[in-house]
Amino acid sequence: MTAASAYASLTSHFARASALSNAIGILQWDSDTMMPKGSVGTRADSLALLRVNHHAMITDPRIGDWLDSARHDDGLGTWELANIREIHRIYTVETALPGDLVEASSKAVSACEMTWRQAKQDANFAALLPTLQEVLRLQREIGAAKGEKLGLSAYDALLNDYEPGARAHRIDALFADLAAFLPGFTDAAIAHQSRLPAVAPLEGPFAVEAQRGLGLAMMRVLGFDFERGRLDVSAHPFCGGADNDVRITTHYDEADFARAFMGVMHETGHALYEQGRPQAYLHQPVGQARSMSVHESQSLLMEMQACRSREFITFAAPKMREAFGGSGPAWEAEAILRHYTQVKRGFIRIEADEATYPAHIILRYRLEKAMIGGDLALADLPGAWNDGMQELLGITPPNDRVGCLQDIHWPSGGWGYFPTYTLGAMTAAQLFDAAKRADGDVLPGIARGDFGPVVRWLRSNIHEQGSLHETDDLLTRATGRPLDASVFITHLRRRYLGEE
Amino acid sequence: MTAASAYASLTSHFARASALSNAIGILQWDSDTMMPKGSVGTRADSLALLRVNHHAMITDPRIGDWLDSARHDDGLGTWELANIREIHRIYTVETALPGDLVEASSKAVSACEMTWRQAKQDANFAALLPTLQEVLRLQREIGAAKGEKLGLSAYDALLNDYEPGARAHRIDALFADLAAFLPGFTDAAIAHQSRLPAVAPLEGPFAVEAQRGLGLAMMRVLGFDFERGRLDVSAHPFCGGADNDVRITTHYDEADFARAFMGVMHETGHALYEQGRPQAYLHQPVGQARSMSVHESQSLLMEMQACRSREFITFAAPKMREAFGGSGPAWEAEAILRHYTQVKRGFIRIEADEATYPAHIILRYRLEKAMIGGDLALADLPGAWNDGMQELLGITPPNDRVGCLQDIHWPSGGWGYFPTYTLGAMTAAQLFDAAKRADGDVLPGIARGDFGPVVRWLRSNIHEQGSLHETDDLLTRATGRPLDASVFITHLRRRYLGEE
Repeated sequence: MTAASAYASLTSHFARASALSNAIGILQWDSDTMMPKGSVGTRADSLALLRVNHHAMITDPRIGDWLDSARHDDGLGTWELANIREIHRIYTVETALPGDLVEASSKAVSACEMTWRQAKQDANFAALLPTLQEVLRLQREIGAAKGEKLGLSAYDALLNDYEPGARAHRIDALFADLAAFLPGFTDAAIAHQSRLPAVAPLEGPFAVEAQRGLGLAMMRVLGFDFERGRLDVSAHPFCGGADNDVRITTHYDEADFARAFMGVMHETGHALYEQGRPQAYLHQPVGQARSMSVHESQSLLMEMQACRSREFITFAAPKMREAFGGSGPAWEAEAILRHYTQVKRGFIRIEADEATYPAHIILRYRLEKAMIGGDLALADLPGAWNDGMQELLGITPPNDRVGCLQDIHWPSGGWGYFPTYTLGAMTAAQLFDAAKRADGDVLPGIARGDFGPVVRWLRSNIHEQGSLHETDDLLTRATGRPLDASVFITHLRRRYLGEE
Repeated sequence: MTAASAYASLTSHFARASALSNAIGILQWDSDTMMPKGSVGTRADSLALLRVNHHAMITDPRIGDWLDSARHDDGLGTWELANIREIHRIYTVETALPGDLVEASSKAVSACEMTWRQAKQDANFAALLPTLQEVLRLQREIGAAKGEKLGLSAYDALLNDYEPGARAHRIDALFADLAAFLPGFTDAAIAHQSRLPAVAPLEGPFAVEAQRGLGLAMMRVLGFDFERGRLDVSAHPFCGGADNDVRITTHYDEADFARAFMGVMHETGHALYEQGRPQAYLHQPVGQARSMSVHESQSLLMEMQACRSREFITFAAPKMREAFGGSGPAWEAEAILRHYTQVKRGFIRIEADEATYPAHIILRYRLEKAMIGGDLALADLPGAWNDGMQELLGITPPNDRVGCLQDIHWPSGGWGYFPTYTLGAMTAAQLFDAAKRADGDVLPGIARGDFGPVVRWLRSNIHEQGSLHETDDLLTRATGRPLDASVFITHLRRRYLGEE
């Protein structure tokens, strides 16, 4: 085998693996949007088989040999070398775990998810404890096994799956800046808005078809390519599908259009990233989205930075009035802007506003890091949760249903994922700021419903870069420096305190 | 390996193969109903990979060993033995072809289908000839290879793929009876209807949502299980999906609801068969539908036998009037019945009515058998087609677009499929007749919108039998004798000549 043929073998192998993961993506989408409930079991069998096949492909021992040979290939360019780096990363992580650990974890997660639904409903943490204990035990084992191979702590190894290159000591510093800022800021923001006139409610009902029509129209404004994607309905909104077939979903509430509207803008941000990945490497590891935080930065850049701006709301308000036949003071752009920038302390992460959301994340990050590190016993989680809520948000949950039982992440084995939400929010602020500096037409464009300037900047600085660079490098190239909290904090002070 | 473990290995292997074919079924459905057009290439890669994997599974050499061992298993019951018979059948046929022949045929078909679309549009048979010649050459080779392994002629071997156990000499006899009957009958039926008062047209437009609502309501009447299936829209209606997830489609025309309405009843007939297959063997070969003609018999039993009966139309007419706000003479049950039982000579198979449809099929059957057998040169097809149309239907196509270029079956490599349509129509007549004899409440049930009696009879006599019996045996058990043309002919004489 020559070095050149080794690289060719790698790319054709991973292109086939991508054909399989594309199939999985569409079947998963179908499960969440279209599938009749009587076929849950049949579908689970199909997805399990394809996932096993996919795992077998990306842990194929020939990959190790091909990687060894391809490293001696002098004819490879920057993208090819980065592709080898990404393939090596995937192969290392995926082969780090013994098969019985993968299977034990999969079974523990299934059992725990099922228990969680009932335990949450009953606000009964004790009922969840045994199965969640098992999930945690296996996550610690997985983190240790991966960490040993990567030379990382268990928590860093778990984090690394979602956020390659991220390390807890960096996140500690970033989140410390935010944690110092947030409590006082939240007080100030709430005080600030209390001095403004009350916001009149937007009165419904809002017909689903009108909501859908408005959402589709705004997706077009943002630049969603309907030749390579769709909008549908699911219980929990997501962006999924396949290469060149990006499927986003939303969930309509006839009593409140505002939430689904901004949800669609959020998922469209994810979708633009997926649709903008480099076509030449679309099916290769180097052509994938860089990380979860970068992905979340794209959704939050659209939802929080661009679409909650005064410029966008001024553009969108007449379209909203037209879609729903709205009139009167509640439908003025300024009122809708106020509606979309309310700050309110609450117990539930997924209902939190932009200003209080990071507190929810910092809490979860601290707790999961302590549990994986062995510094917090799972049995002590409810108390630690409530203490943290009091410290960060100044409120204490009345029960565990709206406390430590609210999220599916831990029961489903997603430890190390939470920080990417707030890293994404900070990244979004830093990127949007850089885009505005680079092109003075970004905000004026948004004001006239022309997302061309901002999307072009994102295309060349983020989307088309795929996984060519590590995250720090990507952000430094795009914004001049690695991630810090300052731009996000400035953004919050401007929007919620009316500064400058 | 013990004989018992061999059988267990077979069933677990084929259950996994079925998890794969279920995935393919849903992805194929998605391609035809949901997929944005920009992802055609990505989807083709996914489907090709899954099909290659599926073919590799069902030709796994271990199957041969397991079959050898399982034959010595004394502990197997009727269903298990039939499962072994079906697995052996699949394994024999699927391993009959060398890989390069499969690949050559797949490529020839792709090229020919592409040429066919344009050639049909241009009514240019000469443009199709070279690529269709190659498809035919490879079909003859495939038929010869399979035939050698099965001890069959090439045509019988091709036919056997769609209709296990069927042989041309039997079909020749059945179709000879029909061919002798049809021309005179068609004259008589047209003369008969010309003596009746003219049928007033049903005036549209018919809103798609109203059509969809009526179709869903009637699917419920027939017994479609929406917990294990869906109704959607595609360019060409079909019944597909997966085990326990049966997806039918239709195509709405706002100027004509009647066609989609009966199309939905047709696909619901297919779907009832799929939803009624034995749950204990749902993922095994013995639990599959018996053959294409038996499948078509289930759709035609619903569409032609049950839903074009006076009893059903009398029940359905008020629902139609309600759905579309129809009133006046055209909306009387008798007028709608006349609308649904018009006989008219035409060039196009898919537009043909129940009475003239068999002539289209007999023509194609004779021609494809002659071409596979080497008795008709492909270059002589247009002339032979037009001669046959004149003989069987008394009309001559003005060009090949509405003649021998109209169907995709031959360009797409579907040789041996055509006769199953008319075998299905005959089987439907024979089954419906037997159901009515067995349960006097079949027709009265349909008249009151209760399909329980007919569906219960089909469930126990056909659906739940899966592939337990060979087709002749299945029909003999259900109706007392193998297939013949007499019941179908009697049905046609009664409905279209008003006899008895």
